[in-house]
Order: sequence, then C-alpha cells, then structure tokens
Amino acid sequence: MTTKSSKIRIKDIAEKAGVSIGTVDRVLHNRGDVRSETREKILQIVKEMGYTPNLFAKSLASKKTYRLAVLIPDSNDNPYWKHPKSGIIKAADEIKSFNTSVNIFPFNATDEASFRNCFIQVLRTEPNGIVFNPVFREASFEFIELMEAKNIPFVYIDTFLEKSNCLAYFGQNAKQSGRVAAKILSQILPENGEVLIVKLANRKVISHHLKNREEGFIEFFNEQNKCNCKFTSLIIDLLDSNEPNQSLYTAFKTHPNINGIFVPNSRVFKVANYLKENNKTDILCLGYDLLHENIDFIEENVIDYIIGQRPEDQGYHGVMALFNHIALKKVVNKSNYSPIDIIIKENINYYNY
Amino acid sequence: MTTKSSKIRIKDIAEKAGVSIGTVDRVLHNRGDVRSETREKILQIVKEMGYTPNLFAKSLASKKTYRLAVLIPDSNDNPYWKHPKSGIIKAADEIKSFNTSVNIFPFNATDEASFRNCFIQVLRTEPNGIVFNPVFREASFEFIELMEAKNIPFVYIDTFLEKSNCLAYFGQNAKQSGRVAAKILSQILPENGEVLIVKLANRKVISHHLKNREEGFIEFFNEQNKCNCKFTSLIIDLLDSNEPNQSLYTAFKTHPNINGIFVPNSRVFKVANYLKENNKTDILCLGYDLLHENIDFIEENVIDYIIGQRPEDQGYHGVMALFNHIALKKVVNKSNYSPIDIIIKENINYYNY
Repeated sequence: MTTKSSKIRIKDIAEKAGVSIGTVDRVLHNRGDVRSETREKILQIVKEMGYTPNLFAKSLASKKTYRLAVLIPDSNDNPYWKHPKSGIIKAADEIKSFNTSVNIFPFNATDEASFRNCFIQVLRTEPNGIVFNPVFREASFEFIELMEAKNIPFVYIDTFLEKSNCLAYFGQNAKQSGRVAAKILSQILPENGEVLIVKLANRKVISHHLKNREEGFIEFFNEQNKCNCKFTSLIIDLLDSNEPNQSLYTAFKTHPNINGIFVPNSRVFKVANYLKENNKTDILCLGYDLLHENIDFIEENVIDYIIGQRPEDQGYHGVMALFNHIALKKVVNKSNYSPIDIIIKENINYYNY
Repeated sequence: MTTKSSKIRIKDIAEKAGVSIGTVDRVLHNRGDVRSETREKILQIVKEMGYTPNLFAKSLASKKTYRLAVLIPDSNDNPYWKHPKSGIIKAADEIKSFNTSVNIFPFNATDEASFRNCFIQVLRTEPNGIVFNPVFREASFEFIELMEAKNIPFVYIDTFLEKSNCLAYFGQNAKQSGRVAAKILSQILPENGEVLIVKLANRKVISHHLKNREEGFIEFFNEQNKCNCKFTSLIIDLLDSNEPNQSLYTAFKTHPNINGIFVPNSRVFKVANYLKENNKTDILCLGYDLLHENIDFIEENVIDYIIGQRPEDQGYHGVMALFNHIALKKVVNKSNYSPIDIIIKENINYYNY
C-alpha cells in the first residue's frame, strides 16, 4: 500500500485563478486589499482543489478572540480534580495561539452556594463557551436555561445530566463502572461473601455519580443467581476528624466476616489507610481513580483494584470540543464516554498519571 | 487561573529587524531572495521572540521529501495486524501534506525468508526511516547492521529487541502482561486449580513475544506461596485443519479438571470456539487483543478476560516518532510501553476497536 503526498501549492491556485501568487497569499492570510470578486474566485478555487487551510493562519487571519470558561470543583477540597485540571491546562496551552483564552473557576463541590456564585461570576464575564461539572442538578438546570437564552454552548465534564442539550459530555458511564466493579468482586469473593460499601464525602453530600456507581454495583450482584453475598452500606462525613476510622471500626465489629470493600469514589485511600493500620489487608478492596495516595496503596497490596477513567483526557477533550465548535466550526461528538480502566498493581506502571 | 494568548506577529518581528513585513514573510517561507545576513538576523529575532514556527509552512518551505517504510506481518495471515496497520494509515494520512510518504511492506510472520526478502526490497527503495516488527531476531540483527551503516533510523513495533540502538519502541511489555494475566486467574481460580496454556501459531512458530508472556505468567504463579495450581502447556499448529480441536480434545480427556485457560496471543477465539461447541463455557478463559472474533466471544461469556494493548496507537505513534525525528527534528522517547488493558464484557464497549 502506498500513501502519496498530494500537496496543492499556492502557485497552482494562482495559475488557475489567473492572479499572482501574492494575491492568493493576501487572500489566504486576509491581508491587504484584494477586490471582493477576485477574493471569492480564489476562495472558490481553493475549495475545489481541496487545499487544506492552515488552521493557525486561518485563526490569526480572522483576528477573532474567544474566551472559554471552565467551572470545576476546587482540587484543594478534592484532589481528584487536579487531574482533569491538568488536561484543561494542556488544552489551554495548545489553543492560546489561536486567540483563545481559558479561565478556570473553581468551586466547592459540597456547597451549592459556592457553585451558584461561581456560575454567576462566569456568566458576567460573557464567555463564548463553558465547560462545567454539573454536580448540583437543580442549580445546573437553572444556569443551563440562562446559557441557552444567551446562546452560549456548554460541555459537561465528569457528570452527565440527561434531558439537557449540551454540546458534548466527557466522563465515565458511572452505573456501568459500578457493574465492572461488581463483576470483579463477584468472581473473586466466595459465594457467601460479605461486602462493605463505603461512601465517603465531605458533609455526606453524595453526588449523583456516586449513587449511580453503587446502583450499578448492586444491580449486577442481584442479577447473579448463584450469589448469596451480603451487603452493608455506609455514608461517612470526611470533614469529621474521627472518620472514617470510627465508622469502619463499628462496621467491622458488627460484621467481622467482611471480605470485600467497594468504595465508589477516589477517596478509597482513606479506607486503605484504616485497613493497613488494622492489619486487614487481606480484605479485597476496590476503589476509583489513580490519585497518588491510591497508587501507594496499590503498590502495597492494600488496594487491590482501581477503576480508572482518564480524567486528564476528559479535561483536555472537554475544552478542545468547545474550541473546535466555536473557533473552528467543526462538528463535535456529543457522547464521549471514557474507558472504564481496570488497574491493578501489575499494570499500573503503564497508565499515565 | 488564566491562560492568556501570547501571539507574536510578523509585524513585530519586522519592526524589530528593521525590515519590511514582506521580507520577514519571505524568510519564514523560504521564498524569494533575501540577503543571507538579513535572513540570519530575522531568524535570530524569531528565535528570541519565541515565535512558534508553523510546521506546515516550514515543511512546505523546506521542499524536502521523505519516504518512510513500514514492515509488518500480513494481516491476511494474522488478523491482529489490521489494527496496527490502521494506525499506520492514519499517521500516513496526517503527514502526507508534509511531503512525506509511507509505504507498507507486508511479510509472512511465520516465514523468515519472506521477512528477509521484504527487508531487502525495502532497503533498495532507500527510505529515510523504517518502522518494523522484528519478529525474527537473527535476521533483524543483520538488517539493523545494514541500516546503521546507511544511517537509516528505525523504530520497533510490537516486539522489542534488547541490545540494539533503535530510535524508539512501541509495544507491550510482554512478560509483564503475562504477570497481569496470572494475577487475574490466580485470584479467581481455586487453590488447586488446573490451568491449560495454549500456544497457537502457524507452523508452531512461537514468537519471542509469546514466550515472554508465558514466562511472566508462570513466574507470577511460582511466586505465590499458597498456590498449588497445575499447568499443562500445548503448542498447536493453526495450519493443521484438525486443530486446535484435536489437541484440545486430548488435553481435556487427559486433564478433565481444567478450570482455567490462558492463550498468550490473539488467536484465543479458536479456543473459545471449541469451548462453546463443547459446552465448556464455565472454564475461565483469558486471551489477548480485541479482534472482532474475540469480542463476539466476550459478549457470549465464553472468553472472560482479554488483555488489550492499543495496537492502533502503536502503529500510529511508531510512524509519527519516525516523522518527528526525521522531518521535524524533534526529540523522540525511546521506550513507549503500551498500557496492559484488562477488558471484560462489562467495559468492552468503552474501548475503541
């Protein structure tokens, strides 16, 4: 098989249009005076010949500037968000030479007022497009109405809101990821296994995401006829300094035969810490996301499985989708589910984090 | 956080150099006569100001053409190779406007003479760089000597040859992927499990890759103290029309308690076919690579685990590394291990294939 170079030269365009190379160059770079008739003729030939426009030059030529806004949880409250943020910064860096700026507005993901204030602030800046994590449903729907009224395209990151007209969504299918977790545990645990589900969140504010993961997890087990596993579910406030140790101590006291733990978010290292300190590392432990704290516990065989979701890619592609739509007028895919990566000690080194 | 646009205009360069915009343009596009003194002055200013050169324009300006050659196994003999090939074609398509052509030379991966003939043919075309699958070690080392004598940079794809000075390598750590497979099976199988290792290859030509995967697999089990698993290993010639059924029939007759199967390559669907026809789908079956035949058996719960390695990315990045080195003079990473993806029925839809 041969792939041949099929370059179209400015010279060829000039010849076909019967004008000088300089004229074609001026039209392509939108520089200097060219009669509008000639300009249109050249652009028509360019189109017919399939000349690949140089996006960089095109953007410089258009002289338009674009401002994108990103609303995501503060990574000081939740270290997970460092990862999408690094992807967002990477995208911002790539598109800055296309006259496009990206502003990140962090909010407190356990405080709806913080989210609302942040959104009001963003809308005041009149951005050309918004990437946001719609963690608060009701508030999100209110702001979606405002954005739609102003024709501001928006992209969801991490969490998906059904029945809304976003430009694109980048995140994991939360329920399905819970099913993946259940499949793994169900294959390893004995038939009469006892599973502890630990939901950790500041102020016990349980996100839609976390609920969906648990739902998928339970649903999968219920579908297995032969499985007689028992489940205990805990909600723990991470802002309480006695936690999660106090609740875990009580849970193990009441259910001494627990042999599997499912933590449906990235805070699994908090549970792993308890397991390690209390010599319970033989319990099968599954959690989410490649935070460095979790990676340490995978290396030590305290956490056995991590479900990954490539958060850097979510941040990067979320911004790029908005940019491609707004600045380059490209068609953008709406649903973009991240892979549900299964990560263990033996393959962790080959995932970027 | 704010990322601001920091565009440098041709106008600014012209002002600083004390020349006209046209002169800067001529230098940047290597067009028309400019005194070499002026040219150097402008290029120095461009460098100092951190002007991002437009690679497309730069390449057009250089007027150099590059020919890259790719030697990979014929996908008619082994369907796996469709996947790296599609990545190679994608890369070829992207770089063709940079005056770079990519020629793919397929060889028969179970016939060393075919590999040698293919390589001789490639070298006659005097390519600027070569991507190849060094499946035959001795022959590869001979050709490496020839390439080094001619200063032709080369990239390995899929298989790595130690003690050789390649520009880059794109593939999976084969031994480690065997350890991942062993970890999964060891957690699910009972303590006294019986594992059948099935090596399928045309003419029983066992690649280095396949050997390394088996080695990692066995090594991991040997390190587990509590494991008393038994192993049986088969080599089956796929060109024999009675196979793999005949050998599998005998194996199950001799070892009726086999409860796990490890197939260290992409032909696992051949074994799955036997398992399905003989109602042995309760046996835990693990193989490699997302061929569509394997995907069907994952959906039907006949294959339980697939180890993936993103072959499209290997092909794509293999060609791009060569292009980046040769045409764009960029620094290229030498070791590029693919992730060892763990794929099951529940997460398969989120992997691209």
